[in-house]
Amino acid sequence: MKGQITRKEFLIGTTSVVAAASLGAVGVSAIEAGTGQSLLAGGIANAAPTPWPWKYKTLDREDVRKRAHKAYHDGGCCYGAFHGLNSALADAVGEPFSLVPSQMFYYGGGGGAGWGTLCGALNGAAALISLVVDRANASALISELFGWYTEVEFPSDISNDYAQQHLFLVSKYDKPLMKTVSGSTLCHASVSRWCTASGIKAGALERSERCARLTADTAAKAVDLMNAFFAGQFKAAFVPPKSVTGCMGCHGSAIANVQSGVKMECTQCHQDNWEHLY
Amino acid sequence: MKGQITRKEFLIGTTSVVAAASLGAVGVSAIEAGTGQSLLAGGIANAAPTPWPWKYKTLDREDVRKRAHKAYHDGGCCYGAFHGLNSALADAVGEPFSLVPSQMFYYGGGGGAGWGTLCGALNGAAALISLVVDRANASALISELFGWYTEVEFPSDISNDYAQQHLFLVSKYDKPLMKTVSGSTLCHASVSRWCTASGIKAGALERSERCARLTADTAAKAVDLMNAFFAGQFKAAFVPPKSVTGCMGCHGSAIANVQSGVKMECTQCHQDNWEHLY
Repeated sequence: MKGQITRKEFLIGTTSVVAAASLGAVGVSAIEAGTGQSLLAGGIANAAPTPWPWKYKTLDREDVRKRAHKAYHDGGCCYGAFHGLNSALADAVGEPFSLVPSQMFYYGGGGGAGWGTLCGALNGAAALISLVVDRANASALISELFGWYTEVEFPSDISNDYAQQHLFLVSKYDKPLMKTVSGSTLCHASVSRWCTASGIKAGALERSERCARLTADTAAKAVDLMNAFFAGQFKAAFVPPKSVTGCMGCHGSAIANVQSGVKMECTQCHQDNWEHLY
Repeated sequence: MKGQITRKEFLIGTTSVVAAASLGAVGVSAIEAGTGQSLLAGGIANAAPTPWPWKYKTLDREDVRKRAHKAYHDGGCCYGAFHGLNSALADAVGEPFSLVPSQMFYYGGGGGAGWGTLCGALNGAAALISLVVDRANASALISELFGWYTEVEFPSDISNDYAQQHLFLVSKYDKPLMKTVSGSTLCHASVSRWCTASGIKAGALERSERCARLTADTAAKAVDLMNAFFAGQFKAAFVPPKSVTGCMGCHGSAIANVQSGVKMECTQCHQDNWEHLY
């Protein structure tokens, strides 16, 4: 069928074309440019991958908020956040972003195949940040995103307003939803806290819409962080809660047996009567 | 500089070549195949992305185990698991796998930018599974991987033996390491339990090597699951622990306020004296 040729097939096809065209000046020029040369010399059909980190282009926060909200309803929170960001970049610059299938991030929904661990909106947004920012700076931006997530109220006023004004691309529920602070980056804790406060079951339509707005808000925040970073204006604002710094006096990784968790609220799982079972 | 041309530049270049070559039979053939046609008609430089899910090729478990172990030492657990798998596929089939920079998964190390949530080895392996398996089946495979992870002893005998026999590509520590069952998919819990049992600090070389072997074991398990799935032989074996099914009688998402966590051991965080604070 026409139009169904793969990139690889196309490149193999053009190898022959380049070979055939090499008698002419245009063909020689393309070959000399580099990749064409290796195609001819080694018969390798694959072009060079785009060097990492990929080049970011300033995004519109509100455009991404709407994309991520719709994408949540298409493929869950992790897909939603990643696709909201990646589709905006693919539309703005095309390749290489358009070559990454956002479906790769289906798995992160419900905290990872429904296991309730890392919130998928954070997971998907973090992957996109890690695609365009070097390792050390990506870690700082992502840690800021995680910290913000634990302290902000979800859904935001903006997302509640969007729903009410039908400004989202999908409106499965158009009323404002109760706002809660999750205190955690974990899906299980974030959702359970909201459900307990709102009295709404986890399986309800409203809960799903709450997570769609949270996904939208998280992707929008990632845009803010990346735009600021690439404008040379990023400053970390998140400070780990006092309970964390207190616990880490004895339980830090340099001193004892605790890995990570150095920023997330300890007492949400570890009560005062915690018996240090392991 | 020669050899530094990007894919996009190359394709723009070959558009001209195809146009110039279209007088010849080979050129016309390539254009009629589809993608070439749109390049000429619309002047669009981007080729069609490879349809998702991407085509898997049977991998060698032990080859991937070694790749993932080395990659852990290059870029952490999440990068390690993803790169162990993705580099094997890129070497076997080239594109589209070679177009995805494994550095995108740097962020998942230490449970996500060091926050101690989802183990990065699971996160990276899950992303690769989600790249080659449809959504519903990927969720089943990943859930099986997560379940296996919570119940198996890390590091495996095989990885301990590899280290002792210097069969790994990188040997920062060559002695067998204590084995523990994590009981959790969370980095924080997995590492803390091992450190407590072994008496080794989280910041120690041995702990890092333990996570490298764990990453190797997790990537190898992902190979087993995918190979079995594509051979039509996958059967889910993980059964959620009794404490989970017991708790979910009252706390399931259809009944009450708990999202997810339906498979992970509840009592690791929730003690008998848990006061239901949220």
